[in-house]
Amino acid sequence: MSARGAALRLRPRWDDGLAQRLARSAAETEAGAAIRTTDVPGWLAERARAHRFRVTPIPFHELDGWGFAPDTGNLVHHSGRFFTVEGLHVRTGGPPHLEWWQPIINQPEVGILGIVATEFDGVLHFLLQAKAEPGNPTPVQLSPTVQATRSNYTGAHRGTPVRHLELFTDPHRGRPLTDVLQSEHGAWFHHKTNRNMIVETGAPIDAGADFCWLTLGQIGRLMQVDNLINMDTRTVLACAPVTFGDAVARHDDTEVRSWFTAERTRHDLHGRLVPLRGLPDWTIGDRSIEHVPPRYFRVMAVSVEADNREVRGWTQPLFEPLERGLIAFLTRRFGGVPHLLTHARVEAGFHDTVELGPTVQCTPGHHGSGTGPAFLDLIRSAAPGQIRYDVVHAEEGGRFYHAENRCVVLESDAAPADPPPGYLWLTPGQLTALLRHGHYVNVQARTLLSAITTGAVVL
Amino acid sequence: MSARGAALRLRPRWDDGLAQRLARSAAETEAGAAIRTTDVPGWLAERARAHRFRVTPIPFHELDGWGFAPDTGNLVHHSGRFFTVEGLHVRTGGPPHLEWWQPIINQPEVGILGIVATEFDGVLHFLLQAKAEPGNPTPVQLSPTVQATRSNYTGAHRGTPVRHLELFTDPHRGRPLTDVLQSEHGAWFHHKTNRNMIVETGAPIDAGADFCWLTLGQIGRLMQVDNLINMDTRTVLACAPVTFGDAVARHDDTEVRSWFTAERTRHDLHGRLVPLRGLPDWTIGDRSIEHVPPRYFRVMAVSVEADNREVRGWTQPLFEPLERGLIAFLTRRFGGVPHLLTHARVEAGFHDTVELGPTVQCTPGHHGSGTGPAFLDLIRSAAPGQIRYDVVHAEEGGRFYHAENRCVVLESDAAPADPPPGYLWLTPGQLTALLRHGHYVNVQARTLLSAITTGAVVL
Repeated sequence: MSARGAALRLRPRWDDGLAQRLARSAAETEAGAAIRTTDVPGWLAERARAHRFRVTPIPFHELDGWGFAPDTGNLVHHSGRFFTVEGLHVRTGGPPHLEWWQPIINQPEVGILGIVATEFDGVLHFLLQAKAEPGNPTPVQLSPTVQATRSNYTGAHRGTPVRHLELFTDPHRGRPLTDVLQSEHGAWFHHKTNRNMIVETGAPIDAGADFCWLTLGQIGRLMQVDNLINMDTRTVLACAPVTFGDAVARHDDTEVRSWFTAERTRHDLHGRLVPLRGLPDWTIGDRSIEHVPPRYFRVMAVSVEADNREVRGWTQPLFEPLERGLIAFLTRRFGGVPHLLTHARVEAGFHDTVELGPTVQCTPGHHGSGTGPAFLDLIRSAAPGQIRYDVVHAEEGGRFYHAENRCVVLESDAAPADPPPGYLWLTPGQLTALLRHGHYVNVQARTLLSAITTGAVVL
Repeated sequence: MSARGAALRLRPRWDDGLAQRLARSAAETEAGAAIRTTDVPGWLAERARAHRFRVTPIPFHELDGWGFAPDTGNLVHHSGRFFTVEGLHVRTGGPPHLEWWQPIINQPEVGILGIVATEFDGVLHFLLQAKAEPGNPTPVQLSPTVQATRSNYTGAHRGTPVRHLELFTDPHRGRPLTDVLQSEHGAWFHHKTNRNMIVETGAPIDAGADFCWLTLGQIGRLMQVDNLINMDTRTVLACAPVTFGDAVARHDDTEVRSWFTAERTRHDLHGRLVPLRGLPDWTIGDRSIEHVPPRYFRVMAVSVEADNREVRGWTQPLFEPLERGLIAFLTRRFGGVPHLLTHARVEAGFHDTVELGPTVQCTPGHHGSGTGPAFLDLIRSAAPGQIRYDVVHAEEGGRFYHAENRCVVLESDAAPADPPPGYLWLTPGQLTALLRHGHYVNVQARTLLSAITTGAVVL
């Protein structure tokens, strides 16, 4: 190639038009090219009726292909693929020196969570899929165009191939709008990373009966309904390069990154995988692995019958939290600019010690009044007029059984302008700028941010 | 605090003036407020004479406080602090499936590499320190204001405190210009991370005889001299938020991040710490741990006598490469805009599989003509007129013994406009933008970039 030919291919480093196109898509809330928003729940119910999908809890000895490894007691698949349930021994540098043991999911491979985007009549639409997962409280939810593990794309499932996967694995098939590795639940996964992608194609792809094109604004409306948009869709859309015009903030971007670096540096936590057998404080029963006394979560197993998945039936372990969780952002305006109160959270399974979580992330049932984490009581005592968002969403139904969180955004001038150590006020634009890079913002905060990027919450 | 008071504290998210101030400092090459550039080598030699610093290789059994642990054979300090030399077992997912064992330094704590900056007569100056390290080929080099391990700031050394450390640990003492966690050598360190910081103070600090204020341009001139600017100074200055006015590039920034994400996803490499004793292919002798046959590096030990360090004398292990390395960027203009050919490198000790390295990073002595990594022969056959930079620098003398690299920037229109998989053309501005975040760019590429950010190389 001549230097002149190469020169012709230079392009601007930043696509200033994309944020506008996302804003235009977010403004379309009532209807898109394919369906009216109010018709989506009925369509989802119809897709659920069109397929058989039955989930039955089973004892561990009825697991097919899975078993406890003779040497470690880890719960593994005989193929060595998918994931394993192992033990984790966690120690903090302290003071205070803390130490605990817990089961954890080990799945070192990188999965793909990918949404295809295309313009219809000049408005970006996103292709979502009506998909059932065994752990979902309502079986069928709106998932990304593609959810694929490495086992999917290397054929370990021995099932039918994942549709449209090539759009995300072949860089010449579309234009990436978002492509970033993000963590999953640090309390339940050991170093799990998924690739969050939005890829734009020049023309609509042939979708099929279980797929639906929706604008960002339509998805925002559906984010206002309990258990309808699945976790994978939420985390991908949180990473969409939406901007908020917030050129001023409490802290400049360098200061924000410096605070984050300091938080990562000051925490000292080491998690080490250990055998599941003999894990202190946990007992392995016929149907569950539980903490003694019962707390946090248990590991259980299900049998699944399905007719529209890569395989027609399977069994697998799932993690089941014992109670509903709460994830909440406090929001407040400074100088007219909305800010969110983020918390630098340490979670044992994170790739690197600390990520930014919401203001509160806990299981409220564990905490009486005055004994919970900071700001829990402020959220419990909120007046209805302060609540900007209050919807129940489930975590990933492929790994977690009925793992619901109450998701709240609460506007409160009682939130301190100068928060305690470990907390910082960031604008939504600062958070979405960090989300162009991996491992800054945890999956719970991403769920709440997706309510903001889709316009379900306007701050 | 009132909402009005809080509002007064909003600030712009981006400091557009900083890049200009860095450019102004880079333009001052001949002299700064403290010293003429040509006088710096003499001053360094004088500081070397002012202190006793003697390094003697010793057999392992003469190590004081260090020994081989009875259970694992790991080389450890009796306090459990500093670092340990352990074994690493590496497997790649493949194909091809590769597997090897090697000694590796395990130092999970985060160290601080910090440079203080202050304006003199409106020009930013950086406070560097004449510091001896046992592994340096020329004992005294220019190091950051502060190099501190967590052992330093928690007092494990039981020595005198590190001067000026509080400027980097107390966020109220200065304004961070750069503050980011970056990797160290992935071939020799397991998951090592250091905090790279530049902190600006409103007034000069009281420095002392071993410290010297220099402009960025003066440091750039000194980067043209072999073994004068130490590795820690280089990595910190590579992270300085210098900009290059490159608003157009071969690939837009989203495409660059997407390519990087794909490179991280497609590589599958797992390194697991194992006991040093019985490590396949390696033998532990009286004075060194060596590969059989001799290759790569060896582990050895030294005794140090000093009079100006936190402690007056000590012994420690060091890693010693068997041959000089080569790190080189190919550079080429497209449409008039300089680009650097980066290589997505897999190194066993990286936090996350892949980081961007220079075009070539290898030990040339291992490779005959036509048998080395891509582009090695192109660099070997370069005409003198193509070479923009060719200087020898040493890696960190606190861990590595006489670990020198020939550092090259080579302009070549023979470099392919469309490089092979795993390589991508990035502008210097794209690389410095990525360097505001951790774990994108490896330490060897950072050495070469520091020659660019300081103006030692003008592309």
